Amino acid sequence: MIWCGLDIATEFSEALSSRFDTVSETPVGSKPDIFFLCSESTHALCLSFIDDCVGGIPESHILAIPDGEDAKNLTVCETIYSWLQNNQAQRHSLLINIGGGALCDVGGFCASTYLRGIEFWNIPTTLLAMVDASVGGKTGINLGHYKNYIGTFTQATHIFITPHWLKTLPPAEILSGWAEVIKHAILLGGKAWAQVQQPIPNTNDHQAWLSILEWNIKIKSRIVNADFEEKGERKLLNLGHSIGHALESWSLDQGTPIPHGNAVAWGLVIETALAIDLSPLKEDTKSLHEQLSAIVKRLFIPIHFTQDNIAALMNFIKADKKNQQNNLLFSLAYAPGNCQFNIAVSPEDVIQILNDYVGQAD
Amino acid sequence: MIWCGLDIATEFSEALSSRFDTVSETPVGSKPDIFFLCSESTHALCLSFIDDCVGGIPESHILAIPDGEDAKNLTVCETIYSWLQNNQAQRHSLLINIGGGALCDVGGFCASTYLRGIEFWNIPTTLLAMVDASVGGKTGINLGHYKNYIGTFTQATHIFITPHWLKTLPPAEILSGWAEVIKHAILLGGKAWAQVQQPIPNTNDHQAWLSILEWNIKIKSRIVNADFEEKGERKLLNLGHSIGHALESWSLDQGTPIPHGNAVAWGLVIETALAIDLSPLKEDTKSLHEQLSAIVKRLFIPIHFTQDNIAALMNFIKADKKNQQNNLLFSLAYAPGNCQFNIAVSPEDVIQILNDYVGQAD
Repeated sequence: MIWCGLDIATEFSEALSSRFDTVSETPVGSKPDIFFLCSESTHALCLSFIDDCVGGIPESHILAIPDGEDAKNLTVCETIYSWLQNNQAQRHSLLINIGGGALCDVGGFCASTYLRGIEFWNIPTTLLAMVDASVGGKTGINLGHYKNYIGTFTQATHIFITPHWLKTLPPAEILSGWAEVIKHAILLGGKAWAQVQQPIPNTNDHQAWLSILEWNIKIKSRIVNADFEEKGERKLLNLGHSIGHALESWSLDQGTPIPHGNAVAWGLVIETALAIDLSPLKEDTKSLHEQLSAIVKRLFIPIHFTQDNIAALMNFIKADKKNQQNNLLFSLAYAPGNCQFNIAVSPEDVIQILNDYVGQAD
Repeated sequence: MIWCGLDIATEFSEALSSRFDTVSETPVGSKPDIFFLCSESTHALCLSFIDDCVGGIPESHILAIPDGEDAKNLTVCETIYSWLQNNQAQRHSLLINIGGGALCDVGGFCASTYLRGIEFWNIPTTLLAMVDASVGGKTGINLGHYKNYIGTFTQATHIFITPHWLKTLPPAEILSGWAEVIKHAILLGGKAWAQVQQPIPNTNDHQAWLSILEWNIKIKSRIVNADFEEKGERKLLNLGHSIGHALESWSLDQGTPIPHGNAVAWGLVIETALAIDLSPLKEDTKSLHEQLSAIVKRLFIPIHFTQDNIAALMNFIKADKKNQQNNLLFSLAYAPGNCQFNIAVSPEDVIQILNDYVGQAD
């Protein structure tokens, strides 16, 4: 169940009570089998709010792991597994992930594999997690610098989404999520595409954000429900990510990590440039590329890579999970509301487009 | 598909050809996307046979990991993941696990989580793996000394079972699997129960083994198909394992590991002793306990624990995945062909039975 609204305290408390009334027959109030996973940031910023809803969480049932991508590895998984085991988490126990995309990814992965799967809920606290990572049942960790190479397809039972947390975020975090909002707007077209050309609302404007969150969750859920294990249509959600993930992984390798949203935003721009030649609607694609470039240039910091970096970028692009055999398969946007998946692209064309963006992605 | 027969070379080659004809459109013969995971033993004893069937496997597509339980940890998983990644295994790639129960468990777990799941096949080479671990879709690794605490429910697409490999096994390995054969015979009753009271057939008697393998796979598959994710009936397959796993984990902790089969055999005996007082068919349960004790004493080496070890054993019994809240839940046999799951047992009763077996399980 995905809930999106303003009064998370009431909604969350009621969901907890009803689960513990019906599922494990524990008296409401004692709830000994709930485990709270948070990041260092959400431990500081969000936990007291959750603690009030629950009516006191024992210290041993809270674990804070590093913020962001630093949490998405097997070492952190081992820490989470051992924490659950040391505190006698059993098959009917519940893990609640409170945090951003990385936290929901790693927490969901651990829950889906601990005792071969225990129930988990997500409380996404970043825009990126609200519109993307917390919804859709993809859990995962990185393998070295390869993003989300290890994971499962497992849905959170409940997801509680509220604009309440947005004001806790630095502007860079809002931008990181906004890249996925732009991606969803390209998929939807129409009013959504018009909206992302407007300024980003102030984080105190809860009503404006509620409406944005709602259409983002709707498009993502619709695609995920149609193709949960990404055999086809779900690949559309990878728009911008073939090159975006490569930029992200490559920058991590270089020791100067680019934030996910920044990488995806430029990934969208560069992939749309690539789409122009392949598009049956060349003029529409050109116009999309211009509008998109304008949005991204206005909001996102530039990305710098040189001709010498292209071989390394290509290695990451070739490792993309969507590829089959020796074919690079991209999801591409031809126009707002008109996107296609499984488009075979030659490495030469990708190299050429990357060349066009050497020193230009700014 | 579970295949059980004698001519594995033909069956395996045909399955490979047909997969690569239809699924990934690679010319038969090149098969670049098959990865072979074996243990040190199966690398030495079984791989040349498989290599002949495939028509040559590139060295980089073979990985040998440690034998037995030493392979069931996150460090070995990382080795497997990196090997797949370094050799460009993609979503349509195939992992073939050739080995015993531990190898099928860890290989299945890695396949089910690499890129959120690639296809895997099992070629079980030990009796234990043939009658139990390779069938039923439980994958897993250990967490510290807690058995199979991390894993997924994911079925191998193909399982190739043949008595061909049994002659490669030392007698202790046959016994290890025989404990699960005894367990299945208790579940089935009738002719199966009569059979396990006879001597174990010679490993050269392929026909006798074929018939034994067939009824073992049949009972296991029937239960697994009825309840894949172990919400109910599948717990029956844990007969003997609440105490068996505890004996195994405890002995591993002590640095003197007891083989899985030995632990399960004595687990069956001790749990059936525990069942007598709880049974609605007291006389039948007593008689089952006597017959079972006779079999286990005749075949299996004794297990020694003292009164001082009981607290440690109880900690492992309390960590059993079947338990709910503070209840110990056992699967118990009341008579051959008459077994029940979710039987609540008090810790005091378990302690008392363990006391009865101090210095006596021999």
